[in-house]
Parts: sequence; C-alpha cells; structure tokens
Amino acid sequence: MKRNSNYDNLEQSYLFSTIAKKVNEFVEKNPDKKIIRLGIGDVTKPLCTAVINAMHKAVDEMGAQETFRGYGPEQGYDFLRTAVQNYYKKFNVDLDLNEIFISDGAKSDLGNILDLFDKDNTVLVPDPVYPVYVDTNKMAGRKVIFVNANEENEFLPLPDNSVKADLIYICSPNNPTGAAYNREQLSQWVKYALDNNAIILFDAAYEAFIESDEIPHSIFEIEGAKNCAIEFCSLSKTAGFTGTRCGYTIVPQALGKLNKMWLRRQTTKFNGVPYIVQRGAEAVFTAEGQKEIKVNINYYKKNAKIISDTLKELKIWHVGGKHSPYIWLKCPNNMKSWEFFDYLLNNAQIVGTPGAGFGKNGEGFFRLTSFGAYENTLEAMEKLKKLF
Amino acid sequence: MKRNSNYDNLEQSYLFSTIAKKVNEFVEKNPDKKIIRLGIGDVTKPLCTAVINAMHKAVDEMGAQETFRGYGPEQGYDFLRTAVQNYYKKFNVDLDLNEIFISDGAKSDLGNILDLFDKDNTVLVPDPVYPVYVDTNKMAGRKVIFVNANEENEFLPLPDNSVKADLIYICSPNNPTGAAYNREQLSQWVKYALDNNAIILFDAAYEAFIESDEIPHSIFEIEGAKNCAIEFCSLSKTAGFTGTRCGYTIVPQALGKLNKMWLRRQTTKFNGVPYIVQRGAEAVFTAEGQKEIKVNINYYKKNAKIISDTLKELKIWHVGGKHSPYIWLKCPNNMKSWEFFDYLLNNAQIVGTPGAGFGKNGEGFFRLTSFGAYENTLEAMEKLKKLF
Repeated sequence: MKRNSNYDNLEQSYLFSTIAKKVNEFVEKNPDKKIIRLGIGDVTKPLCTAVINAMHKAVDEMGAQETFRGYGPEQGYDFLRTAVQNYYKKFNVDLDLNEIFISDGAKSDLGNILDLFDKDNTVLVPDPVYPVYVDTNKMAGRKVIFVNANEENEFLPLPDNSVKADLIYICSPNNPTGAAYNREQLSQWVKYALDNNAIILFDAAYEAFIESDEIPHSIFEIEGAKNCAIEFCSLSKTAGFTGTRCGYTIVPQALGKLNKMWLRRQTTKFNGVPYIVQRGAEAVFTAEGQKEIKVNINYYKKNAKIISDTLKELKIWHVGGKHSPYIWLKCPNNMKSWEFFDYLLNNAQIVGTPGAGFGKNGEGFFRLTSFGAYENTLEAMEKLKKLF
Repeated sequence: MKRNSNYDNLEQSYLFSTIAKKVNEFVEKNPDKKIIRLGIGDVTKPLCTAVINAMHKAVDEMGAQETFRGYGPEQGYDFLRTAVQNYYKKFNVDLDLNEIFISDGAKSDLGNILDLFDKDNTVLVPDPVYPVYVDTNKMAGRKVIFVNANEENEFLPLPDNSVKADLIYICSPNNPTGAAYNREQLSQWVKYALDNNAIILFDAAYEAFIESDEIPHSIFEIEGAKNCAIEFCSLSKTAGFTGTRCGYTIVPQALGKLNKMWLRRQTTKFNGVPYIVQRGAEAVFTAEGQKEIKVNINYYKKNAKIISDTLKELKIWHVGGKHSPYIWLKCPNNMKSWEFFDYLLNNAQIVGTPGAGFGKNGEGFFRLTSFGAYENTLEAMEKLKKLF
C-alpha cells in the first residue's frame, strides 16, 4: 500500500496554537488582568428563534412514524433548494434547482470540489489566504501560485494577464482581510477566467455582511460568470450555523459536464445534510428568519464599526470592517505581526491574530474580529486609544 | 482547466430507476393491486425517544447565549467519542480517543479515506458489491480487481494469496448479500493484509444486527487488525439515522502516519457533525437508547426471519437474514435476476432488487429486505408460498 505522499508536503500551522500558548502564559503571570479576545473567528450569538422552532418541529417529525424521514436527496431537499433559489432572486440571479447543492458547509465543498479537476491544473490563490485553499490542493499534488494582496492594491489584487492559472480562488468579502471586491473589479476576474478557460471558485461565506449595492453578493451577478465560476456559501456566519453545519454550492449548468460530475461526486461520496438541519436552514430564509439574523449581523457590524472608527481616529491603515466581520490593519510603528501581538497582549490585554499567519504578505498586518461582546470591543478600543 | 477525466469511466447505474419505472408501469395498468415493497434499503421506524429527547435539549442549548455552540472539533466532541470508545469495550476492543473520528456517515468516510492513498494502489472488492466502493476508486483512476462471491463460498470469499492487492474492501454483515464472516474467516483476511502490506477498509454498518458471538462486530476483535485495518460504522441502520447522519471511523494509531493524515484531512476538508446530531448519537449509546433501538432492530429481524424461514420451507437457496436486514436468494427455476423481478411483480406484486444490479456474480440472485411493515412481509411470504 502506498500512502498519498503529497501529505508530506503540507506545512503545519501553529498560528492558533501559538496564540493560545502565549495567552495562557500571560494569564498565568497576570491572573488578575482581564483579557479581551478580538481574535475570535467564530460566531457567538445563539441561533435565532425561527431556526430553533423549525428544528424542534423537525425533531418531532423524526420521532413519529407518519413523518419520519430516512435518506434524503444527496443534493438537498427541494424545500431548501427552492429557498436558496428565491434568495438569489434578490440579487437578480436566476438559478435552476439542479444548479443548487445543499452542503454541510463551505469548507467541505471547497475541498471536495477539487475531485472534479485533474491534478495537472495550476491553482491561483491570493496571499494572504484562508489556509485550506492551499492545503487541499497540496494534498492532491497541484501546483499553487500566489497573487499578491497588499497595501498598494488594498488587499484586492486584480488579474495579471501574463500569469496562466486554471483554478482561481476568490473570497469576497475576504477572510482574513475583510476587503470586498466591487462589481467592476470582479468583472475583471470573470473576464480573465473566460479568456483563460479557468474556473473561479468563489467563496461567498461573508456575503450577508455586505451593505452596499456596489459589492456583489454573488459572483453570478457578473455577466459571464455562469460560464466560469462555482460559488460556495454557508449559513455559518450568516445565521450562526458554525456548529449546525449547512451551506450551499452553486454549479451552473453552463459549466457543462462539471454540473453532472458534481452531482455524481455527491451521490457517491455524500449522503446529504441532516433533515433537521435543512429545516433549520429553510427557516433562515423566511421573512421572520431574515429579520432575526439581521439583528445578530448588525450586532457584529456595530462592533466592526467601533473598531474601524477607532483605527481611523488613530490614523492606523486598515481595510475591512464595513462589509465584513474582519478588520485587517497595518501594525503601527512598523511593528511586525507577532511583535504587535505581544505588544497588544502585554500593554492592553487585547488578543488578535497576527497577519503573518495567513501568508508572507500578511507580515506587518493584524486581524481583529467583531464577534466579541459589544462592551468588550468598546473597552478594547478605549485601551487602544490610550496606547497610540 | 482540465477536468478529472476518470469520471468519464464511471458507469451509470440504472438499477433503482429501472425498478421504479417497471413498478410505475405495473401500477398504471393494475391500479387496484397492492404492491408490497421488499426492496427498501432504508429504515422505516422513527428515531427512538432517547434520541428525540436529547436532540430537543440540544436544540434548546443552541438557542440560548450561555449554552450556544459554534465550531466543534472536526473529529467530534469527546462526549460522543467516549461513548463510542465504551461501546467498543463490549467487544473487548480498546481504542484511544484519538483513534475515533465522528463522521456524517460511513458513505462519506469510505469515499474520503481514499485521499490518504496514492493513485497507484490496486483495490480489491468483492462481486457483488455496494457500488460506491468501485465508483470512488474509479473517480481517482485506481485499478479495481474483483474477488468472486458466489454460491460455492456462500458469498463469503476468502483471500487468494496469488492475488496482490493494496486496499481491500470488506463489508460484514454484507450489503447486498447479508452474509457475515465468522472470526476464523476474518482472521484469514487480516493475515493476508499483514502479509501483503495491505489495508482493509472494513464496513461495519450492519454490526448491530449480529446475533452470535461467532461473528465479530468489529474487525479489531481479530488479532493484528489494528496494524492493517480502518473501520467504518454508522448509526444509519443501527438507530435509524439514515436521514440524521452520524457515524464513526476508526483509524488505529498502529497504522502510523495514516492516523495523523486522516486528522489532517478532516480538519482541512470537514467541519464536524452538527452538535445537535452528536447529542442525538450520544443518546443511542445510553442504556435507555440501547434498549429502545433494540426494539426497532428486532422488528426488522423478525421480518428477516419470516422471509428466511419461508425460503427454507420452499427450499430456495439463500444467505443472510440472520445477522442482517438483507436476504440474498437464488432465483427459483434458474430464472435470471430481472426475469424473477418481473415474475414476482406480475404474479405476487412483490418488489425486490435484482442481484445483477450489484455485479456479474449477482446474476441469477435477488435481494429482499426486512425494512417493510411486518404485516406486509407476512403477506408477501404467503403469496410466495402459493407461487412455488
């Protein structure tokens, strides 16, 4: 038996374990000091009432002979696919039901979609980057090249026609930077993909944080995108589903065989999302659900605004915080990422995430998130003001 | 962009769509006749009370700030891994917690585990076979060879030392045949794997139907198996979780790098099973849960016994039906599988599954299942007695 030796080429990430270690050491030495965590990449607000009610009802159905559900369709129940279809109509995107695949989250499908592509493809990812884009491709032995996201392009790199890529990852609004492409910029990527017979893997996990018509929620708002893009979205950040697990993947029919291949992949290697969870997800798309999730999103966005406004006041360069729960800032006084991490921890007991952990272009940058409590976020910003 | 051209080599299965078509045509012509479906491969009994109560409680937790859960560990919560660990102790199998990975079902992990292995491995599967073993390997371009299961070996083929294989699929109790390996037979497979540096992928999805100490529930009951086997199990058939989605995969530490590779695969391409579902699964392993699921399993087993006893009375050769919800019979009067399907449908309105749909050795055989209602199963067997 031969192992997949590509796994030997994966780099271990010690980002979050190193953060935890440093924080623990600080707490041991300073047991009386309050730590404020602005590094959280997970939602903190509970599921909304509409979702909870729908899931209780579904649990009851599963306990009664007349309403019990066994195997569901691997691509998801029509009631949920129809809800997703209607949601896209808000962005003037028309989808056929068989272009919509219910998933257990964007992370799974972003990795699994690679089954459809030959090993011999060149993959383009931005740097800094959500690490799974890189690792999932390295696992399959694919060549990964990087496009530089930096202060100059405000962490929104545009295509370089001299570079040839086959698979392109775009996450907008971006994790980790919070930067979001506008319509014109995304159009440039669509044009590049069409010109190069490339496929864009578009991660829309943060679309619910968008607050301007200038920023597309879906890449399919861009003309031609159905001929060159697959979109991944998730209810994780939209509706607090990080521990409930539901998302959706759009594979347009215009991509030819890829749509049927994905159906075949899913029916062969997946058995669908739990019925109970699909009913909870359906409730997110009701009028009541949409109203309720907005309350949570606005809570996070209020935090993001406090952070962003404070950084503006302090004249600290940053992106994000507007269409995103993430704020990506340039470390003051030319500090390096980990230097700033230590400085903030020691002098203000604020924990964030060093940008260097997301790629070489992250060096000298730092990520703050808006998933903490409002009072803590406010307190952290007051402390920051005293430091700079 | 290059597609994965291995998908072009997959065969379309028309087994269940052809069955549906034939049944629909019959019903149209004979609207007054009652059809009895003994082809069902899905559970029909609702989830037990312990599971329902646990899931209601978990839904409430997800709706309250103090008890809400975001991202869980990709490999599953310790409360559930510990429950699985204790379950294995009943079979005298000691597992470390980090050998236990909670999954969303055996089908997903049986496909995804192949990420850990090089394309250049020879895969051995029995014929007849659960089709996903073959398709998942064809998708990756691996060479698949078959070992003959047939009347002579009672559909329990043993290793042939002249054949060289790297990955070996064993499902016991078997889908589709219901045949189950005893301790001595499984030991032969373990010896073969150890001698050939091969890995056995052991599908234990039907272990809860076993009723004799002679039949191992886990391959790890066999000495040496931790050095050559990965086990996949599911609560789908054990506790009616086909629409609720939870299982577990055991990757022994003794397999060296494979254990850490699987952890890396799951943390990169998976985000864990929903918290609510894991709490439901935990309840399956409580004393109350075990008692309640036994009631359902015994209901199905009673059906299986009626079918098996009838076939014995009619002197129709068959396997399964004892440690399994499936009964695999030789079509009477040397009929071919589809011929017998038509004969049963037209003359007794019983629907089963033609064995030919599971591989060439399935030709001339037929699968009946015990997931129907007791009264219908009894009625079907009375009709069968009148026919033969």
